Amino acid sequence: MDINTNITKELKLVDNFIKKDLIKEKTISGLYKYIFNSGGKKIRARLNLISSSANKHKDRYKLASIIELLHTATLVHDDVVDNSPTRRGAKSVNNLWTNSHGVLIGDYIYSKAFILMVEIENMKILEELAAATNDISQGELIQLDAIKNLDISLNKLKKISYFKTGRLFEAAARTGAILAKSNNSYINNMSASAKNLGILFQIRDDLLDYSINLKTGKPSYQDLREGKVTYPFFFAYKNANKKEQKQLRNLLGNKKLNQINASQLISRLDGINKTNELAKKYHQETIKYAKKINKLGIKQEMIELANIAINRDK
Amino acid sequence: MDINTNITKELKLVDNFIKKDLIKEKTISGLYKYIFNSGGKKIRARLNLISSSANKHKDRYKLASIIELLHTATLVHDDVVDNSPTRRGAKSVNNLWTNSHGVLIGDYIYSKAFILMVEIENMKILEELAAATNDISQGELIQLDAIKNLDISLNKLKKISYFKTGRLFEAAARTGAILAKSNNSYINNMSASAKNLGILFQIRDDLLDYSINLKTGKPSYQDLREGKVTYPFFFAYKNANKKEQKQLRNLLGNKKLNQINASQLISRLDGINKTNELAKKYHQETIKYAKKINKLGIKQEMIELANIAINRDK
Repeated sequence: MDINTNITKELKLVDNFIKKDLIKEKTISGLYKYIFNSGGKKIRARLNLISSSANKHKDRYKLASIIELLHTATLVHDDVVDNSPTRRGAKSVNNLWTNSHGVLIGDYIYSKAFILMVEIENMKILEELAAATNDISQGELIQLDAIKNLDISLNKLKKISYFKTGRLFEAAARTGAILAKSNNSYINNMSASAKNLGILFQIRDDLLDYSINLKTGKPSYQDLREGKVTYPFFFAYKNANKKEQKQLRNLLGNKKLNQINASQLISRLDGINKTNELAKKYHQETIKYAKKINKLGIKQEMIELANIAINRDK
Repeated sequence: MDINTNITKELKLVDNFIKKDLIKEKTISGLYKYIFNSGGKKIRARLNLISSSANKHKDRYKLASIIELLHTATLVHDDVVDNSPTRRGAKSVNNLWTNSHGVLIGDYIYSKAFILMVEIENMKILEELAAATNDISQGELIQLDAIKNLDISLNKLKKISYFKTGRLFEAAARTGAILAKSNNSYINNMSASAKNLGILFQIRDDLLDYSINLKTGKPSYQDLREGKVTYPFFFAYKNANKKEQKQLRNLLGNKKLNQINASQLISRLDGINKTNELAKKYHQETIKYAKKINKLGIKQEMIELANIAINRDK
């Protein structure tokens, strides 16, 4: 059986752990069950399990559950921040209940994750996860202040992608490797590969918002409508002349934008191509560090994840 | 110099710690400074310093800062949940910026507190603070579902007071005592005294909402307007006949309620007296456990806090 099939089996155990051991408080089980039933790819938990598979510790599933809980807490709060009506194809907590529920259930999940973290009794793991959680919130705050900000720099966009997404990928890999009592070289190569993979995921996510949706046949332009400057818009704006810049400014934060005009303008100004180039760069970085990992199964798994990430269309 | 004066001096050091060491990230310093400049009684940090004064550890101010940060994070999220326009006499984060800022800055402060906690490297302290944070969010969730809930039990109201307020008082005392490497008897008596003190604080808070405000000359009835069933309403409703119950139901969640009618009705139905009786009970419990503490200065300090709490009018 290859490592991939094994990890998929193990992810089911993580699911069970969350469902059986965590969803028992009556007061919140309604909210809680709902959130974890809605599925998701669990890429971060998978990454953590891959990383910790180097040397199987009894707390592997607990740690993967923690990573998944932290991610879920950020999603629940994100939906409040973005006022999103849906999440993973189902109604979001803030939509189904209220924003207040979204805030509090997010806090509940965060602190549940911290309780479990403390149980693992590993200071290095605690340190990394506390720092990552703080960086994630910082990334979201920077992004909030980047709304309708046409002067944002490429470096700031990269910082947002790293803090918002790369950081938890990195922490998932690093804590998995620490739990497996690995050597520094393995810890650092896994972390660097995962960090770049996370940024790649975020870039692809930004691109998907500008791509033809297979269901609707149109791009959704959610980020653009919300006024979020992401890579495709950033690169297009850089290449635009005065007149085109004005057209782009009219799209940003425009809930009723013309999708065909937007699509033609941003493509013509190389917004999509340049973002694809950037994605390729992070794909290469992910693979560069993956190749330095000397455990064959894990190296292959990381390369496969990088290839999935650059080709993903949902 | 008595312990009280000393602790007040030490609270200034806690302030400095928060201001100098924590508010350095440029991206968030605007929000951050604002929140910590707005003051507050810092009763929880004080309690923690009292408790840890039994045996002065180098991390005392750090731990007191952590307690204050955790409390501040809950306040910032509370203001989003309650949609409050003000906090500590100044505009709330969600009012000055947006709800989104309130959610994220709350997360930022929480995770900053966790980073500092990990630095103290004491598993028992981590365990207590992670558990307390989780209980606080659970208390807020229970309260949310208690809105306009006329069937709520006295036990549930007590659980809300404990989780929302008593729990962090208890954790402040317990972690202070743990840091001071105290014996179990000191840890448990301090914790029990502080837990009851916190519940007493919450009961007095509920009462203040129904009392004549010295500035406006009128009760503010904020809880009542928001539809929150707290002790004065609960006891009045218990004592009411069918007709009075209907009148009470008309007040709950009524933004334009008649203050004079509300005041007369709830007083006549013993809502205020019964709540005062309950406050006295928790005052006695606080003192009962304080008297078991065999460090004289600390015992006196706890008794003084209990007396301040039951007499406080703001």
